[in-house]
Amino acid sequence: MVVVSSQNTVVNTYPLSSYTFGTKEPKMEKDTSVADRLARMKINYMKEGMRTSVEGILLVQEHNHPHILLLQIGNTFCKLPGGRLKPGENEVEGLKRKLTSKLGANSPTLVPDWQIGECVANWWRPNFETIMYPYCPPHITKPKECKKLFLVHLSEREYFAVPKNLKLLAVPLFELYDNVQRYGPVISTIPQQLSRFQFKMITN
Amino acid sequence: MVVVSSQNTVVNTYPLSSYTFGTKEPKMEKDTSVADRLARMKINYMKEGMRTSVEGILLVQEHNHPHILLLQIGNTFCKLPGGRLKPGENEVEGLKRKLTSKLGANSPTLVPDWQIGECVANWWRPNFETIMYPYCPPHITKPKECKKLFLVHLSEREYFAVPKNLKLLAVPLFELYDNVQRYGPVISTIPQQLSRFQFKMITN
Repeated sequence: MVVVSSQNTVVNTYPLSSYTFGTKEPKMEKDTSVADRLARMKINYMKEGMRTSVEGILLVQEHNHPHILLLQIGNTFCKLPGGRLKPGENEVEGLKRKLTSKLGANSPTLVPDWQIGECVANWWRPNFETIMYPYCPPHITKPKECKKLFLVHLSEREYFAVPKNLKLLAVPLFELYDNVQRYGPVISTIPQQLSRFQFKMITN
Repeated sequence: MVVVSSQNTVVNTYPLSSYTFGTKEPKMEKDTSVADRLARMKINYMKEGMRTSVEGILLVQEHNHPHILLLQIGNTFCKLPGGRLKPGENEVEGLKRKLTSKLGANSPTLVPDWQIGECVANWWRPNFETIMYPYCPPHITKPKECKKLFLVHLSEREYFAVPKNLKLLAVPLFELYDNVQRYGPVISTIPQQLSRFQFKMITN
């Protein structure tokens, strides 16, 4: 039996203007098409078993409303910073490694001290297809991927280095909500997953 | 800064057949139309300020997949058990009161010892309208309602008394997911909100 004493979890959220953004060398996508991506997934599955990927929800505030940092590739596709764990890698350590790879400066002293917080969602990929579900569907005994989303608690000041081929966007919750067409099923329901938190909007 | 040590929260889930269901006197809806309901909400707001409502997510399992107990009114409309708090009432105590009113037997010894768990979502109603959001929209300083959803941890055996004018359904997560047409925005995204939990399916 799990009983949680504190029903409210406060998350401090700082203005976008608190953060500094630079650039670094491009991080190219490993695949040039969805078909290539699914084929590579299949090869990796045969070698290593179920893929576990981890993604970070980095929050800032503007106009007293929470915004999420998304990486935009090309003109339309957006994703959370994160990626695939190495076989056996710890989730928290793996997410820190991926966040540094995607958003950390090349100089280690400038890389944020990532504070990985609560797991807010898990998504399962039952087959080598694009569709994922927020549960492992019945009769699926060997899911191909589990994707885990974590809240990342940012400090008041951070320096982010954005790969030159990507854009970093701060997208408000009200833009994500009910917008599966633009952001897909995983990102568009982040507002619901975060609704249990109380955001403490800190202004400079 | 909030750091959570345990990233996985295990929820024990028992088979639907563990539970016993009886009936009790009808619980009629206070309003006969959506317009009546919104009008009553407005009157109560003027007297008491923002309405806080609490609802419980009661989980059972069938075929190794989590199901949620929903109350069906008439042929189509489904809702979670719960209701409005009295002014100043504690959320957890108020939810226990509402669960007993909706699902508890008339004999106090048969009423479940409700274990109210984690808050999984909050929804805000900015105006006296049906639309709600999983955040308080920007520029809304006086929301009219906050609806809070809590996980309710059921014991292995319970007796539920269902009002005669209602049906109690056990609906699988895969039926709720992506089904806003049938279940509305609040209930249809419960699978995403629960995805962070690890369900331990207990069989008899």
